[in-house]
Amino acid sequence: MGQEIERKFLVGSDGWRDRAVSARRFEQFYLFAGEDRSCRVRITDGSSARLTLKTGRGISRGEFEYEIPLEDAEALRLAAIGTPIEKTRHLVPNGANTIEMDVYHGALDGLVVAEIELASEDETFERPDFLSIEVTGDPRYLNQTLALRGRPADDKASS
Amino acid sequence: MGQEIERKFLVGSDGWRDRAVSARRFEQFYLFAGEDRSCRVRITDGSSARLTLKTGRGISRGEFEYEIPLEDAEALRLAAIGTPIEKTRHLVPNGANTIEMDVYHGALDGLVVAEIELASEDETFERPDFLSIEVTGDPRYLNQTLALRGRPADDKASS
Repeated sequence: MGQEIERKFLVGSDGWRDRAVSARRFEQFYLFAGEDRSCRVRITDGSSARLTLKTGRGISRGEFEYEIPLEDAEALRLAAIGTPIEKTRHLVPNGANTIEMDVYHGALDGLVVAEIELASEDETFERPDFLSIEVTGDPRYLNQTLALRGRPADDKASS
Repeated sequence: MGQEIERKFLVGSDGWRDRAVSARRFEQFYLFAGEDRSCRVRITDGSSARLTLKTGRGISRGEFEYEIPLEDAEALRLAAIGTPIEKTRHLVPNGANTIEMDVYHGALDGLVVAEIELASEDETFERPDFLSIEVTGDPRYLNQTLALRGRPADDKASS
């Protein structure tokens, strides 16, 4: 179990691509998704799978993550709500932090969202040029919303 | 992952008690519970915990079970829906099968439910005298319903 504090931004340019140091491919879907709880299954690089429970709301949430057999994940996909999400996560070092750049595929193709994990809610960080508007706490950019409702109509700030 | 086929009965007498060979104490609660899916956390004998996802409906359901740290279970209890259930499960050998006798405590005190797991939907088994009416598929006797709505008003057949 952990507390995660993350800030989320749309992305205004491709300036981050030269700074990316690694990439992983995620397929993920939800078994349930409510305002104060969600259950996600994520398959990484087609070879391993994790089940994640999130509880609570807002910038600080409880997170419980468990490795599960790949065959369980594939069987659970039959019970997915909404559309499974496919994305590539690129890691971009940024001072003492790392920015995760999520480049979506399939139905969400064209959407890019940046996330930075912080140790506390008031921790500052160097803000690179490629970040555009902040969408922390905007429910439209939760992955569970993207899975259920697709891409927001007005996110043109995203490249 | 497994398919579980279970038949469930109310209990008309204490005749099973002499035949019980072991007992474990369960505390369990739900993080979500819908018609075709549920997520349960169960703490056994106060010392170990499992997370169980069930999918599907009726007599055949998919079940996915994972050991989780006890401290995770205790933190997740804060997100429980309904009332956590406490019960003692006694095992009663019955021919080639085993009958699980669930004796409820706390808010459900007095309720006893018997469950027998079968290899197929049409497998027969020797039916002991202490079983009264069958409640297989009766949603009122799902543990998730008991957690959310309490004991059914008319289950007087139960001892």
